[in-house]
Amino acid sequence: MKLKIKSLRLGAGRPIAFIHPSKAKHLNIHPGERIEIIQGSKKIISIVDIARRILKEDELGVSDELLELIDKGIVDVSLALPPSSTRAIAKKINGLELSKEEIFSIITDIVNNSLTEPEIAYFVSGVYHNKMSFKETVYLTEAIYKTGSKINWHTKEIADKHSIGGIAGNRTTPIVVSICASLGIVMPKTSSRAITSAAGTADVVEVFTKVDLKLDKLKEVVKKTNACLAWGGSLGLAPADDKLIRIERILNLDPESQLIASILGKKISAGSKFILIDIPYGEGAKVSKSEAMKLAKKFVKIGKIFGLEIKTVLTNGEQPIGNGVGPVLEAIDVLKVLKRENPPKDLEEKSLFLSSQIIEMMGKAKKGEGYLLAKSVLDSRKALKKFEEIVSAQGSKSFKMSMAKYSHIVLSKNTGVIDSINNRTINNMARILGCPIDQASGIYIFKHKNERVKKGEPILALYSESRKKLEEAIIYMYKNHPIKIK
Amino acid sequence: MKLKIKSLRLGAGRPIAFIHPSKAKHLNIHPGERIEIIQGSKKIISIVDIARRILKEDELGVSDELLELIDKGIVDVSLALPPSSTRAIAKKINGLELSKEEIFSIITDIVNNSLTEPEIAYFVSGVYHNKMSFKETVYLTEAIYKTGSKINWHTKEIADKHSIGGIAGNRTTPIVVSICASLGIVMPKTSSRAITSAAGTADVVEVFTKVDLKLDKLKEVVKKTNACLAWGGSLGLAPADDKLIRIERILNLDPESQLIASILGKKISAGSKFILIDIPYGEGAKVSKSEAMKLAKKFVKIGKIFGLEIKTVLTNGEQPIGNGVGPVLEAIDVLKVLKRENPPKDLEEKSLFLSSQIIEMMGKAKKGEGYLLAKSVLDSRKALKKFEEIVSAQGSKSFKMSMAKYSHIVLSKNTGVIDSINNRTINNMARILGCPIDQASGIYIFKHKNERVKKGEPILALYSESRKKLEEAIIYMYKNHPIKIK
Repeated sequence: MKLKIKSLRLGAGRPIAFIHPSKAKHLNIHPGERIEIIQGSKKIISIVDIARRILKEDELGVSDELLELIDKGIVDVSLALPPSSTRAIAKKINGLELSKEEIFSIITDIVNNSLTEPEIAYFVSGVYHNKMSFKETVYLTEAIYKTGSKINWHTKEIADKHSIGGIAGNRTTPIVVSICASLGIVMPKTSSRAITSAAGTADVVEVFTKVDLKLDKLKEVVKKTNACLAWGGSLGLAPADDKLIRIERILNLDPESQLIASILGKKISAGSKFILIDIPYGEGAKVSKSEAMKLAKKFVKIGKIFGLEIKTVLTNGEQPIGNGVGPVLEAIDVLKVLKRENPPKDLEEKSLFLSSQIIEMMGKAKKGEGYLLAKSVLDSRKALKKFEEIVSAQGSKSFKMSMAKYSHIVLSKNTGVIDSINNRTINNMARILGCPIDQASGIYIFKHKNERVKKGEPILALYSESRKKLEEAIIYMYKNHPIKIK
Repeated sequence: MKLKIKSLRLGAGRPIAFIHPSKAKHLNIHPGERIEIIQGSKKIISIVDIARRILKEDELGVSDELLELIDKGIVDVSLALPPSSTRAIAKKINGLELSKEEIFSIITDIVNNSLTEPEIAYFVSGVYHNKMSFKETVYLTEAIYKTGSKINWHTKEIADKHSIGGIAGNRTTPIVVSICASLGIVMPKTSSRAITSAAGTADVVEVFTKVDLKLDKLKEVVKKTNACLAWGGSLGLAPADDKLIRIERILNLDPESQLIASILGKKISAGSKFILIDIPYGEGAKVSKSEAMKLAKKFVKIGKIFGLEIKTVLTNGEQPIGNGVGPVLEAIDVLKVLKRENPPKDLEEKSLFLSSQIIEMMGKAKKGEGYLLAKSVLDSRKALKKFEEIVSAQGSKSFKMSMAKYSHIVLSKNTGVIDSINNRTINNMARILGCPIDQASGIYIFKHKNERVKKGEPILALYSESRKKLEEAIIYMYKNHPIKIK
């Protein structure tokens, strides 16, 4: 069917075409299906939606992103048969093992927008139910990094770390990077924004400085300071992964093989070679201790195939780390540790422990001596100085550390001992309060697990820029009991 | 966030809102997520997309369908938390049994567009992997019909039939309805259009007459003729089912419990009471013989709960029925049977068998005598007369029975016996040829299974309105071998 391209002046975030209902009926097309657009020797697959009134019958409306792929003029449009990757997805749903070619076809089609969101959901669900073999996980990792760009560095001695998510307030990265970089370790850290938590490392660092760096700028910062604390999202490192995560987070599905492939794929793209992986375990974390041990082995084994040196550590993930949950509150915790001013002990200890592992892995200290070295650069304020250097190199920014407009202090109703603090409920509450967008919203946790609390003592402080959100968070809290006292 | 409603004059087929990228960033919204729109006491959930340029920053673009739900003016927009039905979907994905309330929440949210397509895909996939208990299937059936409208008839003696899909050319319905209605059985048949096959009953009947009837017109036709042969799609009978089917067909997933709930939910909505269910089995059909037997029992058991009298028959579904595949070609087969002019024997026999079952169920003949009665009204042309009555009551229409412009005859390369004819490959080929939109496109099958064929004899004729489609179908045929000769 011949149709005339019409720009709708619509930036939809992805290529999308709009067709008149009469033509949709003729082609037997429903919203969300795919059309094939042929123009000369070009053949493009696009998702299609139906639009009355803004289109004439013989027009094909296109989003800005689609207009970048085709020229204005006449095109030939037909219903596209599903790409062959849908057959691979059906195989996985039915419990069969996928070949390298099949996994690459799925990931390539995710990147070039040939797969629709329900199709990606079927893939995630197939992997969730039927798991992936070791081989499949390797292919998935390879496909994720090979379908994106890769950063090359001046040295091969690139260190990196990753803490598996889900633990509220677990903001060790800025501290660990500052300690390691001040010892000469090259650590160009790219982090994500919050996916389901109150804040990601990129959200917290953004309180201090710009995190949305172009590749040139990022390399300049690393050259100057040995490190960076940037947002990975704008670098196009593993585009398939971002799309997979969007579909996974819908139901908080996180199949193990995708977790591994996602983390390692991104690390390979970022040019990292020596990688510390922190696996928090326990109630409220993603995995139990025995699962964490198995997961650790897989990380090391798959990393080896791609020439990565991977060290794993298992840490207690039963409760939030530090006192603050939310961008500004976590930034305050980080500064307290770096400035040696009344630091949250758990955050400090975990940061020192993770730093010691990297220091020893990179040969800056003998085995068993990394901790003292890390402690010395922290105590001497060298780490603080390095942090300030990185922040200033990324672009200084005035920031205020004041909290959000509305607050509410939660007092203990009983005397007793804190029995548990639920990571997920704390994260959800912080999101209701406005995290991560309202930087100064969030939760201050006064007491940690096993600490004694008296009736009437404060246990939580809630902050929000909106009275309504504050009220909603309080209602959520009374329904879900994030903290239990025994 | 306060935004101003702007009509985009866009009929998108479903309520959808568009937001400016800067506001999307502020609200942490991605395309395909949900927003809550508050206007006075109204609270509406809508899927949101991102649009630059056609919107000012403070505007919320809305599709026609969304504009029907809200008034122009200022609204308050926020990121909507996922509806509680997503928690129910997560439960199903994780293998837990759902309560009645949970199943109703999912189906209600599908109907009111509160669930996104990947969420529905997760539901389908969860049901596919973990199956549904008997109870869950009952609740699903109930939810599907209770969330749509229901037709009430002047009598309770409403007969109906359903053949489970997937068998190419299986066009018994117009014949069965004509036979039964000519015997005084009230049979207001609503059918679907093709989902993955070359033609649905509605597509075939549309060759003769209008099938898109309003409820009043439909009732008038039934009053006049005892029957109708209408398309069910425009009656809003089981709206959840249509959306589920759209997501299921992506990977041809058809979980048993959804198959049962979909069929029975639609029959209850259509006001049917005595229902014959034809379950084709065998290679190339949806189920094996033993699966068909189990499925039959479940239909009867669940039907009983809703006060339905269900009779099931198991039929051989190993190959296409009749000679024609495609709307006009199947219409010709139907006419040949009704006119007694060289009818395809398999289509005639199957239609008589199904008719006999309904005739006996409705007490129009004693057990074992239905077949002869059916044969007599067919031979006496009473069934033909009834068919013409129905067609004329629905709206006469000039139709031509000529075939599509381009054709290709496939000759046998060997002498031998037809070993198999694959339903799915035949259906796919017919769709490539232009079915069901190009009514006169399709496939004529010269020989059936176990028939002898000589080298050089015709085995298939392909018809298409487009030379390119014809060529594509031929290429597809040589890759996929729909017919095997031994």
